[in-house]
Amino acid sequence: MPPQNRKTDRPGPSRRQFLSSGLLAGGAAVATGFGATRSAAAAGDPAITEIQDWNRYLGEGVVSRPYGVPSQFESQVIRRDVEWLTASRESSVSFTPLHELDGIITPNGLCFERHHAGIAEIDPSKHRLMINGLVDTPLVFTMQDLMRFPRENHVYFLECAANSGMEWRGAQLNGCQYTHGMVHCVVYTGVRLKHLLDEAGVKPSAKWLLPEGADASAMTRSIPMEKALDDCLVAFKMNGEALRPEQGYPVRLVVPGWEGNMWIKWLRRIEVGDQPWQQREETSKYTDLLANGTARRFTWVMDVKSVITSPSPQAPINHGRGKAVISGLAWSGNGRIKRVDVSLDGGRNWTTARLDGVSLPKALHRFYLDFDWDGSPLLLQSRAIDEAGFVQPTKDALRAARGSNSIYHNNGIQTWHVKADGTVENVEVS
Amino acid sequence: MPPQNRKTDRPGPSRRQFLSSGLLAGGAAVATGFGATRSAAAAGDPAITEIQDWNRYLGEGVVSRPYGVPSQFESQVIRRDVEWLTASRESSVSFTPLHELDGIITPNGLCFERHHAGIAEIDPSKHRLMINGLVDTPLVFTMQDLMRFPRENHVYFLECAANSGMEWRGAQLNGCQYTHGMVHCVVYTGVRLKHLLDEAGVKPSAKWLLPEGADASAMTRSIPMEKALDDCLVAFKMNGEALRPEQGYPVRLVVPGWEGNMWIKWLRRIEVGDQPWQQREETSKYTDLLANGTARRFTWVMDVKSVITSPSPQAPINHGRGKAVISGLAWSGNGRIKRVDVSLDGGRNWTTARLDGVSLPKALHRFYLDFDWDGSPLLLQSRAIDEAGFVQPTKDALRAARGSNSIYHNNGIQTWHVKADGTVENVEVS
Repeated sequence: MPPQNRKTDRPGPSRRQFLSSGLLAGGAAVATGFGATRSAAAAGDPAITEIQDWNRYLGEGVVSRPYGVPSQFESQVIRRDVEWLTASRESSVSFTPLHELDGIITPNGLCFERHHAGIAEIDPSKHRLMINGLVDTPLVFTMQDLMRFPRENHVYFLECAANSGMEWRGAQLNGCQYTHGMVHCVVYTGVRLKHLLDEAGVKPSAKWLLPEGADASAMTRSIPMEKALDDCLVAFKMNGEALRPEQGYPVRLVVPGWEGNMWIKWLRRIEVGDQPWQQREETSKYTDLLANGTARRFTWVMDVKSVITSPSPQAPINHGRGKAVISGLAWSGNGRIKRVDVSLDGGRNWTTARLDGVSLPKALHRFYLDFDWDGSPLLLQSRAIDEAGFVQPTKDALRAARGSNSIYHNNGIQTWHVKADGTVENVEVS
Repeated sequence: MPPQNRKTDRPGPSRRQFLSSGLLAGGAAVATGFGATRSAAAAGDPAITEIQDWNRYLGEGVVSRPYGVPSQFESQVIRRDVEWLTASRESSVSFTPLHELDGIITPNGLCFERHHAGIAEIDPSKHRLMINGLVDTPLVFTMQDLMRFPRENHVYFLECAANSGMEWRGAQLNGCQYTHGMVHCVVYTGVRLKHLLDEAGVKPSAKWLLPEGADASAMTRSIPMEKALDDCLVAFKMNGEALRPEQGYPVRLVVPGWEGNMWIKWLRRIEVGDQPWQQREETSKYTDLLANGTARRFTWVMDVKSVITSPSPQAPINHGRGKAVISGLAWSGNGRIKRVDVSLDGGRNWTTARLDGVSLPKALHRFYLDFDWDGSPLLLQSRAIDEAGFVQPTKDALRAARGSNSIYHNNGIQTWHVKADGTVENVEVS
């Protein structure tokens, strides 16, 4: 938009220069399979027959926004919550707008949130991380201390165990932002937890860790030592810059491939012990109640999963028949995705999708299927297979194994019903 | 920060709970090599002997910011310009704060800007891309049309040809944000330019393209057909979300490994021709005037280059002697980085740095060197070698070959002088 003080000297619209170059002669008025219009046929399109403001006036200069923000035309691309889902927003969740995104990196401003006592707003100069318990030397680290250890960068997905949880009982929510939006994927910069534990000196009897958050909920989870020494990070950056407050600024635990609840944010203490602590978040919560009344516990790994992000209820097909792109995400806590299949007919026939780019373990994978839509209704499904050989199950198969009491760990196949008019609904097929 | 209305019931500070667990007994007051303090010695640290606000009060809830922003404690992490550098901010540059970042991904809000007529603020529903000239069928694409072609995601650096340009005449600017901050690296989502050209049908005589921007400067550059068909993208997303306005929203050209001026933003037209157009930006500008009065032209590839981002003038060593991390970036328009060497003594001795993570062609590479600092002054340098075998030259070698008239394509080795007090200056060594 041109600055206010220039509006007075703006004349009415006129024909754009490039249309006076004689290209309008000839050419039929037929669109190609991709919808592109032969230039002659576009002659009546006001978008190209009028000069737009952005061609005629100087725009805002550099550092008009020292920290940049999205275009005003992207205001619909935001995290959203479901107000009836929780009693208060301090202990609630917001969802990543997966249907608006592409590739595998989630922008920091759009990563879903899950808090138990709101967002701790921490002064990093006053923050400390303590390691205590079964160690030779209990230690206290400043943020600067942490940044003196060897650093690594890794791309990992983070999924809440409750992602898709409401779908256990059937199709509930109309949009992949709500059904699958408790997942994000960023590059973490941090130090291996192993290095910090080595510095404190772990005693031979030590088998478990209890990381603790500095927010008012003081979130805690028991983590086995084997995982801590394998690939856990103490991270202070995401996508190149400092962690965001809602993602644990200034420091969080990264527990690759495991449920998000364990990735303790605002990390202030790690206690070393010889057995799990049986905290609320691993007894009353984050366990899976089976049909027979017993519960699965310590179900840490996020199983192989996928979802088609476009088309989807919030991202209908607006362009009618012809060339179309199916785009989606797949991930597994077991490592890399080996293959993704897509069905247009509710799971009767499957086509292998194209996996995009570099395949990274425990990261989102982007898949595409390019196809010609004939305008008939579709029952879209995706099915991921990981490098460990796990195959994403149907929802019915999951329910047969675990009943329908569960909230957590629903990795069942999602179905979108694409109607003839291009609108899309969340449905179930049996 | 707790909400204003809760301030009245806040008592004075008291000892944090985790310090009453008996861990303070024993332990010497000596810090480890990484600066971590034995917990007993931390007993006098107010940061851990007082309960902080963030432990005691509920924080802001979810979607308090539907599109998230950085912590208030990161307000120094911004793009900056140099006011005396240009006559107006509409035709100017801002710089990426490289010294504050890590990994290889630049957050969208911090990617440097270079405009010639300010930021065009474009309504995507009214934007069109035309392909005309030596084609069988001139075509006009809407944004929706573009998104029906097969999509790809790639991580590429974008460097302005003038990056480090002021350093041709010696050490000028005190900070890698200013000396090297006209580079960023993001994931682009887009379609191959080749697919769009195929749709229009390129005539056999076509050898060159002229992409044109929709801003008031109508930026144009001649690009050889061979490059267009090789790896150029017409991109509409960066780091997962829509391009930012200052990066060409809603669509820009991506010309991997080549100078940033050619990555036309706000892309509205691509003309196909049989020879270069000799535009201002490839005659008067973006050419390299040699000592003998002739000029290098069409110097498109950005040569192998690197810089240490920390320590650097804006990121001094604050922690004194002991364990320290040298962190930096390397890149090459020829492909992957094969090796980076680091010198602590102005280029007399070299140590091979650790290249972090996956190596991607024409992307930034992050390198680290972990070392023990004895507190003596350092002359830090980094030297990158790419997979094509090119070795980053000294500034003196560059000047011997090209004189000192140049502005563009300075890929010389940078030197930072680290003083005994940890402060850092931009210097030159011969």
